Amino acid sequence: MNVAIGLLGCGTVGAGVVELLARRQDKIAELTGLRPEIKKVLVRDLDKPRAVALAPGQLTQNPDELLADEDIRIVVETMGGIEPARTYMLAAIQAGKHVVTANKDLIALHGLEILEAARAAGVDVMYEAAVGGAIPLIRPLTEHLTANEITDLKGIINGTTNYILTKMTETGADFADALAEAQSLGYAEADPSSDVDGLDAARKLAILASLAFCTRVRLEDVHVQGIRSITAADVAYADELGCVIKLLASGRDRHGVLSLHVGPALVPKHHPLAHVSGSFNALFVRGDAAGDLMFYGRGAGSLPTASAVMGDVIEVLRSLRLGVSGRATRMILPDKRVAALPDEPVRFYMRLTVADQPGAFAAIASIFGVSNISMETVLQKRAKRGQAEVVIVTHATPPHALAHAVEGLRALPHVQAVNNVMPVEEDPA
Amino acid sequence: MNVAIGLLGCGTVGAGVVELLARRQDKIAELTGLRPEIKKVLVRDLDKPRAVALAPGQLTQNPDELLADEDIRIVVETMGGIEPARTYMLAAIQAGKHVVTANKDLIALHGLEILEAARAAGVDVMYEAAVGGAIPLIRPLTEHLTANEITDLKGIINGTTNYILTKMTETGADFADALAEAQSLGYAEADPSSDVDGLDAARKLAILASLAFCTRVRLEDVHVQGIRSITAADVAYADELGCVIKLLASGRDRHGVLSLHVGPALVPKHHPLAHVSGSFNALFVRGDAAGDLMFYGRGAGSLPTASAVMGDVIEVLRSLRLGVSGRATRMILPDKRVAALPDEPVRFYMRLTVADQPGAFAAIASIFGVSNISMETVLQKRAKRGQAEVVIVTHATPPHALAHAVEGLRALPHVQAVNNVMPVEEDPA
Repeated sequence: MNVAIGLLGCGTVGAGVVELLARRQDKIAELTGLRPEIKKVLVRDLDKPRAVALAPGQLTQNPDELLADEDIRIVVETMGGIEPARTYMLAAIQAGKHVVTANKDLIALHGLEILEAARAAGVDVMYEAAVGGAIPLIRPLTEHLTANEITDLKGIINGTTNYILTKMTETGADFADALAEAQSLGYAEADPSSDVDGLDAARKLAILASLAFCTRVRLEDVHVQGIRSITAADVAYADELGCVIKLLASGRDRHGVLSLHVGPALVPKHHPLAHVSGSFNALFVRGDAAGDLMFYGRGAGSLPTASAVMGDVIEVLRSLRLGVSGRATRMILPDKRVAALPDEPVRFYMRLTVADQPGAFAAIASIFGVSNISMETVLQKRAKRGQAEVVIVTHATPPHALAHAVEGLRALPHVQAVNNVMPVEEDPA
Repeated sequence: MNVAIGLLGCGTVGAGVVELLARRQDKIAELTGLRPEIKKVLVRDLDKPRAVALAPGQLTQNPDELLADEDIRIVVETMGGIEPARTYMLAAIQAGKHVVTANKDLIALHGLEILEAARAAGVDVMYEAAVGGAIPLIRPLTEHLTANEITDLKGIINGTTNYILTKMTETGADFADALAEAQSLGYAEADPSSDVDGLDAARKLAILASLAFCTRVRLEDVHVQGIRSITAADVAYADELGCVIKLLASGRDRHGVLSLHVGPALVPKHHPLAHVSGSFNALFVRGDAAGDLMFYGRGAGSLPTASAVMGDVIEVLRSLRLGVSGRATRMILPDKRVAALPDEPVRFYMRLTVADQPGAFAAIASIFGVSNISMETVLQKRAKRGQAEVVIVTHATPPHALAHAVEGLRALPHVQAVNNVMPVEEDPA
């Protein structure tokens, strides 16, 4: 039996879905007993040349041609953005259609509304492609690992910043040059702020943390720091310390109290996350029974994202075939308290710009002494123009104690700047 | 509603299942609407002290007390080995019970028989824990990635050999010493042959390849080489070449022709698999749409394996709740041809023991020249007692050409031994 699909949007991901569905139509029919077929594709411009083969009759600029077509059982949303995607998706759900989406912004901001609408309408909403591209993350967290209390998530979930930081590490380039290269290759957008300021990673973390910790995480619960201030000097010091700099998203659940953070960190070179290069993504998950797990793969791109979308479409087809559509949705458990700051002691890196004067180092050391923070490593480089650079790595220190010390350092007349305070990751157990 | 579970075996994994089920009973009831309870546990010795709390009435030495108990809906098998596990499992299936197993040997050797019996009886058989311990592998391959044509599997799927090779790399120990340490810590068995000769990895590869490549792979289709012949010298040379030695399981599907191999290989230090240490496992999967993916985590142990077992139990409960038990089994597609040898050109490492005589190197070089194999790296170390060691890394060479050259080398009077011919992995794309 054929199952008609409506596709909202035919950009990079949508075109991948059209191509992959054509490639695998027979196999999917064999596996599920149902043959998916793309009936209508909503596009902005009917005449734009496309890389994929679609009949002129399949294209439309009118959303109602999909949403009001009773023949269409599944709507695949690859438009991105909040509106009109949200309105179309809710309309599809209310019309009894199952929805598969790759839209992380929409799920992060309006996921609860959409999932509740789906439950009320008895339809499936699947969004494996919204986080981590091709990497199976959503279903492992909601299915395979449900016997675990998940305590930690940590990962690289933004490909643009990872490409930029990888370039800076490999070539010694400064942030601006690496960003310009990423833009020229299409890995970063003209306005790169959503990526480089950490917002994209924060949205994905909110989705992952909601599922892993069985609660509702709001975007504003995530403490976010971007990578604009990372310099070639930081990258070089990190290298000297046996580390690379990565933008990490991390979430912790400590007995129902959550802490959620996106920001740059030093990762030791023998840590598996240190080797996640370029546009790849990786997520560490720690469960009380499973221990440490890592999932790694392409976090974006046309066919990788389409792989996750089509995996979801196949699951929707299986549920249709078994007659259990809309009945597998997980419940959302009560909100947990989100802590203001990460509260576990960690090692910290910081780079100070210091006046090259006698007594400067003694003044700095005394601030650390008063705050009861011990230093693990100190690197002091030759001064230029009366300025010295001092890089300090502390022993494990509670974040509030460090914040207090940083205030003290900033108040010192010798200290001209405290740059890039970043946690230093420990090796996984 | 309560669902009674019968547990076959209460060793390391079984005890983990008892503990984890007790920890998560309430959460599972909340998620699935069904409350799992362990009713009976089959053990060999009723009086053995156990780490987990079981009432005396829960233990039995009589398998019929589980298998003939109509109240028991799910049988969890953690005995290991072929018999009597196979007989009990088939009896449970025929009695209409769902089965969750961690038994890789049984699934690798009798998986088809068991899955066909399950299909006939309309029950679920799940075996996520049989490969990769806590790591979700079976379901990603059979569900999330089904829109892909999977072309390559490559990974570290035996923790014992990985522990031994990691020790050899970190301490410079020889194989025998590293094995003895692994045995004293309980990571290797008194008779270590199933692990160190590669058979355990071969069984797991047969299971993974059957699922990934949608065919039936027999154990005898897997070409197997163990790690007994790896010396501290090989480990040191690998280090000099920027590599570590790992026991890799690899499977390839090239347009329906399979090649399946377990054996030691040189892995570049910046390859993600190089950083899989100790008892951890990792599997690379390449799909035509998804690209490269990696799954990493604890490959064995009580709670990690129990995490996978309980994930399967929860899935069985969901199917029970939805009334779709036994209906989600994937079809097995026709057999594919298994190639005799890996057939793609790769770089090879070899260590030659050579008489320290004039003309020896020229003779070796001429064999390579005649076979049209070019050398990428040559390391020759100072001779002792008239013997020199020559390590050669070739450029990418078809395996049959290399086998021919090795024959030629063995025939040379100068060459006393050709040790440990191993492929050198390329970096992932």
